[in-house]
This record gives sequence, structure tokens and C-alpha cells, in this order.
Amino acid sequence: MSVLVVGSIAIDTIRTPTDVKENLLGGSASHAAICASFFTKTQLVGVVGDDFPKKYINLFLSRKIDLAGLKREHGNTFHWDGKYEKDPNKRSTLVTELGVFENFKPDLPQQFRASPFVLLANISPALQLYVLDQIRTPRFVVADTMDLWIKTARPELLKLLRRIDAIVINDSEAKELVNEDNLIHAARLINKLGPKFVIIKKGEHGSILYSKNDIFILPAYPLLKVVDPTGAGDSFLGALVGWLASKKDVSLKNLKTAMVYGTIVASFCCEGFGLDKTSKLNKKMIDHRLTEFKRFTRF
Amino acid sequence: MSVLVVGSIAIDTIRTPTDVKENLLGGSASHAAICASFFTKTQLVGVVGDDFPKKYINLFLSRKIDLAGLKREHGNTFHWDGKYEKDPNKRSTLVTELGVFENFKPDLPQQFRASPFVLLANISPALQLYVLDQIRTPRFVVADTMDLWIKTARPELLKLLRRIDAIVINDSEAKELVNEDNLIHAARLINKLGPKFVIIKKGEHGSILYSKNDIFILPAYPLLKVVDPTGAGDSFLGALVGWLASKKDVSLKNLKTAMVYGTIVASFCCEGFGLDKTSKLNKKMIDHRLTEFKRFTRF
Repeated sequence: MSVLVVGSIAIDTIRTPTDVKENLLGGSASHAAICASFFTKTQLVGVVGDDFPKKYINLFLSRKIDLAGLKREHGNTFHWDGKYEKDPNKRSTLVTELGVFENFKPDLPQQFRASPFVLLANISPALQLYVLDQIRTPRFVVADTMDLWIKTARPELLKLLRRIDAIVINDSEAKELVNEDNLIHAARLINKLGPKFVIIKKGEHGSILYSKNDIFILPAYPLLKVVDPTGAGDSFLGALVGWLASKKDVSLKNLKTAMVYGTIVASFCCEGFGLDKTSKLNKKMIDHRLTEFKRFTRF
Repeated sequence: MSVLVVGSIAIDTIRTPTDVKENLLGGSASHAAICASFFTKTQLVGVVGDDFPKKYINLFLSRKIDLAGLKREHGNTFHWDGKYEKDPNKRSTLVTELGVFENFKPDLPQQFRASPFVLLANISPALQLYVLDQIRTPRFVVADTMDLWIKTARPELLKLLRRIDAIVINDSEAKELVNEDNLIHAARLINKLGPKFVIIKKGEHGSILYSKNDIFILPAYPLLKVVDPTGAGDSFLGALVGWLASKKDVSLKNLKTAMVYGTIVASFCCEGFGLDKTSKLNKKMIDHRLTEFKRFTRF
């Protein structure tokens, strides 16, 4: 089944101690859609400006991503400029220029409104709800969020949580959302706010799935070198939902396997700037790393 | 086969936001020996003062731990007083009084010098080497260490690393030891310093085993509440070596399973103050949690 992906599309500048890369394709929806596209038919909803490079349109098209929901507005594409320290877990934002993203109003094309799988990548909960209202009978809705919305849009976020099947959130944000230091307890409290499945991203430490009757704990794929972790969480999410949609049946077993695929694809993301690595993936590369990962984790 | 455990034996005061517990049995060797004793015959080498409570001697004896290497000296037992914040990952040391531990000279009884498995719990590398020099033909030697020795006793620590089979070290210390931010790369660099197996403890995020030809990544057992994590690393180490010694064959497969047992026993440690929970364990409790853990981690 197809996946509808909505979120930000950005042009990123990424600075590391050894490199500065400009004009990279970035944004939550870009990463998620490209990574979902390895597993299922993907529809992208987003907005770009006049300056958005044709090569990135071609990249989406090369992955057979349906761009009927991609608007081009007059102005600049959302721009993010971030700097990583020697330890890539430490980053700071230098510049955020919203550009055309500031007035983004994701009106879905009619043919997108029947999408069974909906991936609400990280944008404001109000926009996520706006999209959700247009979907006729969603089978499975997953949303990502961030600390900004926990701080500035809590009522909308809580409303969203009651309407989605799964939330994907990083560990510090999960703790902040429910004001609880113990991560497992935080997951339990978020579960009570609505979503049947709470998926917590722990970066290099992997991820956790919490549901009322089960816990699943998954390490990350071990990397000897992290080049640029930007978008790793969105890649995880995109591959997760993409793989799940390819299976039709949203069982707990399938959700666990989907997290494994998300983990594998996210590891590739970290090995290159922007979408350098993930955009060049193929199933053989994914399956090879999956085999290694099983070996690394079996006991 | 038997395990010789050498390290500190302490009387701890543990402060959490809700409790203050005094006169707790603590120290690296206490935790490690008790936890090893669930799996194999255990010999304890350490020193205590006049004030050391009889009930803790009885606790060691109840676990059939051989105390021929336990010295009682005139003076006070090593005392540690520590305070945890609401987030139990954050702690500070209020008091460290070495007492009789200051002049600890671990001379092994003759019958301990044939021990096949040697667990050098966290004490100075000089003392760890002093013990190792007395062991005739060790089959498998594991050492723990800490940031203090990395800073103040690096030459001795490097000498130790060349003589042991496995080092167990926490993540921040591993990075500090080889001045490398990437944990997997840090493990590789430590591996090159001597020990065939590098086991990195990541607390609530689990542990990693690195050897030249393999990586094994293991999450921690998920806990809804952490009461007191003091000694969890020593418990992990004790159970790990104890279980391994019970198997004779130190294969990579057995080492992985030993880490799983270490993980399970360490999780119990965190659920009570000091040795409250671990000292009351039995194989049924361990095996029950192991079954759960398999369910939580299988995909």
C-alpha cells in the first residue's frame, strides 16, 4: 500500500569540523519520502521555493515518488544551517529561514486523500492535524514531533496524539513531553495520551517500542564513523512506515521488523552528508546490512 | 570453575531525592562476588575494618563465597557517600574515606593462586597487576577500571591492558581512554591496546562487545523505576564472569550469553538500594527475567 509523507523540504548547510556542505537536500519529508520509497509507493506533500534545484526534483522522480502534492511557491525554500562538533551528537543551529514554508498549507490532491498509510513528519501539530482531517479512512497514522512543539503547541500536540496510531519521538523529547526522567515510564505515560505505539528514538543507542502489552528494544547499527546524522530520525521513520506499508498487516511482529529496517536505513543516512548515501541505496545494500545487524544482535 | 574476585569492599551511604540509606554493603568486589556466586564458586579478596558488620560477613558466607582472602584490619572500612538526583544517571560523590583500604595489599592465599577465572574489579591498576602476578596460570582475566585511573595511573593501566583477556569499561571512560568520540572506534582502539575482548557498559543503553572479528550489541533490560544504580556495573561484571566460569569454554557465543546474564542481574541491582535485591536473587528469578528479555529483544 502507498504512504503519504508530509513535512518540511529544505535546503541545508551542514558544517562539521572538517567540512562545510551547502545546498544539500534536507527537511523531514525529503528524508522520510526517499527512505520510504525503497519499500513502497510514496506520495510527497510539501512546499519549495523558486530556488529549489531541479536535480532534487529529479531525485524524487527517480525514486518514483508521486509529486502531485509538491507545491512550488514564489520565494525561497526553507533553509537550515547547522553545525556539528567533533562529537556528532552535539549540534547547534546557526540559521533557520522559513521562506515559503512559513505559509505552508498542505492541501492534499484528491487522489492522496485515500492514502492508507500516513506519515506526518516533523512539522507543527496544527499542520499535521490539518492533513489528517483530509484523509478519508487512514489505516495507520504515524507522527513525529520535536521539542519546539512540546513547548509552543502542546494543546495541538495532545489533540494529535489522540488521533494517531504511533508517535515517533526522541528520548529527551519523550521525557520532556510527560516530565518524567525514566524513559520506559515516559513511554508508558505517552502511550496513555493516545497512541497505541510509542516509538522512542535514542540515536546511537537505538530505539524502543512501547505498547500496552509489549516492549521492544533495538540497538542502533554500530558505525565506526558518523559523517552527518542530520535526517537520521526522518530516515528511520520513512523506512519504518514504508516497509510496514509494503506488508499490509500492521502486526506487532511487522512493526518490530519495520523498526529494524528503519534502523538499517538510518545508519546509511549517518554515513554521508544530507541524502548522499540514502538516495543511492538499493535493496541489496539494505539486506546485506540487515544480515550483519542480525549477527551483531543475536544471542 | 571458580572465580577469584578482587576489589573494594565498602560501607555506602546512598542518598536519593526520597531516601537516605546508611551502612549499606558496597564496593566493587562485594557486588561482583555476590553476583558471580549465583553461577559458580567464588573467592573474595579484599579488606575490611573493625566496623565491618557481621551481617555482611554472613551474607557472603550464605552465598558460599570463600573468604580466605578477606583481611580484617584495624581501622574503618572504606566508606563512600553518594547522592543521586531525580534522574538516577546523575550522581555526585559527597564523601570518600579510604580507611583500611588505603593500605590494601592483596596477598592471595596459596589456594587462590590456581584460580582459572580472575575478576579484577575496579581498584588501581597497580593493585590489579599485583594480584595478577600471583596467579599461576590464569585462563581468563577480566578487569574493570574507571576515569580516576585513566587520569592518574595511565602507564599501569596500559600495562594491565596488555595482560588481560577482557576489559570492562563504561562508555565515557572508553572514549576518554583513547581520546575518541565514536564509541565503536574507541572500542577498536582499546582492542589494539591488548585485550582480546572490549566490553563497554552504556548503563540504561546496554553494552557492547568488541573483538577483532565481531561486534555484539545488547540493550539493557528495561526498568520502569531505578531505585539505586550503585554497583550495577560491578553486578554486570560479576554475573558475566560467574556465568562464563560455569561454562568452562570461553567461546564468543558463551561470552555473549554471559553478557546477557550480566545485564539481567544488573537490572535487579538497580531495583534496590545497595545489594538489597541482588543478594536475594535466585536462578528462577534470573531465568524468568531472561525469558522476558528475549521477548523484548527478538525480531
